Amino acid sequence: MSESLVQEVLDANCALAAHGLAPLTWGNASGIDRERGLVAIKPSGVAYDELTVDDIVVLDLDGNVISGGGRPSTDTPTHLVLYRAFEEIGAVVHTHSTYSVAWAQAQREIPLLGTTHADLCAYPIPLTRALTEEEIATDYEGATGTALVETIAERGPSELPCALVRGHAPFCWAASPAAAVDVAVTLEQVAQMALLSTLLEPRAEPLQAAVRDKHHARKHGPRAYYGQP
Amino acid sequence: MSESLVQEVLDANCALAAHGLAPLTWGNASGIDRERGLVAIKPSGVAYDELTVDDIVVLDLDGNVISGGGRPSTDTPTHLVLYRAFEEIGAVVHTHSTYSVAWAQAQREIPLLGTTHADLCAYPIPLTRALTEEEIATDYEGATGTALVETIAERGPSELPCALVRGHAPFCWAASPAAAVDVAVTLEQVAQMALLSTLLEPRAEPLQAAVRDKHHARKHGPRAYYGQP
Amino acid sequence: MSESLVQEVLDANCALAAHGLAPLTWGNASGIDRERGLVAIKPSGVAYDELTVDDIVVLDLDGNVISGGGRPSTDTPTHLVLYRAFEEIGAVVHTHSTYSVAWAQAQREIPLLGTTHADLCAYPIPLTRALTEEEIATDYEGATGTALVETIAERGPSELPCALVRGHAPFCWAASPAAAVDVAVTLEQVAQMALLSTLLEPRAEPLQAAVRDKHHARKHGPRAYYGQP
Amino acid sequence: MSESLVQEVLDANCALAAHGLAPLTWGNASGIDRERGLVAIKPSGVAYDELTVDDIVVLDLDGNVISGGGRPSTDTPTHLVLYRAFEEIGAVVHTHSTYSVAWAQAQREIPLLGTTHADLCAYPIPLTRALTEEEIATDYEGATGTALVETIAERGPSELPCALVRGHAPFCWAASPAAAVDVAVTLEQVAQMALLSTLLEPRAEPLQAAVRDKHHARKHGPRAYYGQP
Repeated sequence: MSESLVQEVLDANCALAAHGLAPLTWGNASGIDRERGLVAIKPSGVAYDELTVDDIVVLDLDGNVISGGGRPSTDTPTHLVLYRAFEEIGAVVHTHSTYSVAWAQAQREIPLLGTTHADLCAYPIPLTRALTEEEIATDYEGATGTALVETIAERGPSELPCALVRGHAPFCWAASPAAAVDVAVTLEQVAQMALLSTLLEPRAEPLQAAVRDKHHARKHGPRAYYGQP
Repeated sequence: MSESLVQEVLDANCALAAHGLAPLTWGNASGIDRERGLVAIKPSGVAYDELTVDDIVVLDLDGNVISGGGRPSTDTPTHLVLYRAFEEIGAVVHTHSTYSVAWAQAQREIPLLGTTHADLCAYPIPLTRALTEEEIATDYEGATGTALVETIAERGPSELPCALVRGHAPFCWAASPAAAVDVAVTLEQVAQMALLSTLLEPRAEPLQAAVRDKHHARKHGPRAYYGQP
Repeated sequence: MSESLVQEVLDANCALAAHGLAPLTWGNASGIDRERGLVAIKPSGVAYDELTVDDIVVLDLDGNVISGGGRPSTDTPTHLVLYRAFEEIGAVVHTHSTYSVAWAQAQREIPLLGTTHADLCAYPIPLTRALTEEEIATDYEGATGTALVETIAERGPSELPCALVRGHAPFCWAASPAAAVDVAVTLEQVAQMALLSTLLEPRAEPLQAAVRDKHHARKHGPRAYYGQP
Repeated sequence: MSESLVQEVLDANCALAAHGLAPLTWGNASGIDRERGLVAIKPSGVAYDELTVDDIVVLDLDGNVISGGGRPSTDTPTHLVLYRAFEEIGAVVHTHSTYSVAWAQAQREIPLLGTTHADLCAYPIPLTRALTEEEIATDYEGATGTALVETIAERGPSELPCALVRGHAPFCWAASPAAAVDVAVTLEQVAQMALLSTLLEPRAEPLQAAVRDKHHARKHGPRAYYGQP
């Protein structure tokens, strides 16, 4: 696997901590080398400030460890289900960031109330269905991935770059580890803004549809004009 | 265009990030050289810690780029409309700061509840009207500027140093880039304090009018006695 | 006036900024030399990171400037009224800290809900009465001091180390500038905790009286046993 | 007593401050050497950045000071009651962290709303009973310990690693000082997330029992598979 991707995965994990999105060791980032079919991911329970490239675990898409001394993140099966389901996904990030978790625990999707949200995604941030007791007993982390895939299947991962796992926390994805961290940072801001707006005005209207579509199109798709060409 | 103004615009953009008002690349500051009719503004989508004076884009008031390699901020037409409408404006700042956005998304003006607000402005912080679908389709950013101009036209930009764009975020203005950043910092504090007071006491009374006027006059206008002479 | 007191006042002003209690220039600390009848206070509108001992303004208790080049804080008359009314006060601190202001704007005293509050003070944090229009027109800052004195007169400044000025912000006092900063830090924590508890449980019961008195007596008065002897 | 345990206790006290859990001097950590029956604890009222190993007070389980120049934390009797009641406890941490205190002041246990909570503990975070006036008058700190012991006695300290003292603040315990700090950090996050979820959705459902048990078993007990073997 390319050294640069392993380094990007290491950097993305450390960025989660630096952005305050992952207290203690509660977050993990991975990236995939589609050519070789290999995924690099954080080892389980290791502190971000002690992580080195040698700690990053490399696995194939069936979860067989190829290199890296430690046990991979317990959430690895969730990441793998997402990679297997969607070719467009190049990186996955999971955090327990405060405001995103607040919505997940309230078991509510995040309504689309403003342009900050529309810049990220043109839809409410969805919530996965509850898992069955059998799913939880037999393959909890894999079933979490399956529920995420079901939740975003209709729109696809480019249209829905993140979702909340019911009662748990967010998962985010993008083309690269750094871009997936940006999704996680943005989602947490969007979650905080939406929570504050909702406390202030419980019946807040969704953002006007034409503004929503305009903002989204400024940043995404063929007619985007945000950023440098 | 004077080098010092370009430097001030660069410094103001970096100050937005340092004050935590602009996560990722979500904020922009500009300044105008009224003598030459030239505006300096942040390039679109560039990280604050990578910005140099050479990146700052200089345009005329019709939006023609005079210097600077990159594409200007997507919000440039909003800034230009404000500069064209009001001679008193020397700088414009746009952020997605959390609490100000919370009010914009709740589609509520910020009520004047205390002296911190009165030190900034003697009126509630207003909210722009909704744009029409045609405005959004044909000239979204320009129409945003037009709505801001309509919102503050009666009082003028000295009496109303900032406003909330409905469903979006704040714009602030002042005589200089550094002063516009101070407006943005103050607005975010005022927005947070007003939100907390409103959650605590949904029917909170506005600040007593005589105290409001006294505080405002201490800091602004011919009888101001705040700060050094 | 003793150089060490001027230095303590300088340090206290900088500590307000370091503790995040005074955004921009919105806070001031003063100290009194009772032997000489001189008060040292922050100059108006000067940034904390630019303050030097030479900037600190020294005045007598009638407000006549004795030394220091600049204009004293606009809130100086409030400080002087407090010093003249209560011999026990050795220092005064004023901030616009967020949660304390939220209560002042909601025009509510801070209820005594827990031991953190009882460690500071055995009573709710009181709110001053509204000023009359004449008071505001003729001597606003002095009348603010008078209202504070009325509010705490019955208990005295040792029993009530701080109060909220209605619609405005807190004032705190203690024997020394450093101790007054500690009151301001504690008050802001108490204000935040009380606000969060009140949002969670609007009818939260006050702290049990025996626990309140026990906690207060652990830290204050002849039978205190907190800290080193 | 082993030097390394004294160092661990010093480090744990400093970590409370570094994590923002103990403003001013409002928190204390202790550790026990079970072989020698000696407890090391923070001295009362000393600033964290001035603490040295020589300041750490060592006592026996009856509270007799063995070494260390100063007065031990006023909360020492609470720690000692916990150590005497439960052999499994190797360290105790007390803080006044903001969101945990908010629940203690609201006199409500923290409901189990999500997986972040289940990773810490499989039950709501309990609240102690009110103390009697006699308990408060005769042995306040000891009675606080007794109330904590009663609260967790049925489940035991391994199943309930922390509790809220009614109207006061949290106490946390674990096998080592560093692990007790991790409990305190996690509890504060859990308290904040639960408070935000409850404001958003006052009737939020508890986390699905099967997910709760799965998450808890991933991290704790014989079938744990989180972290490195």
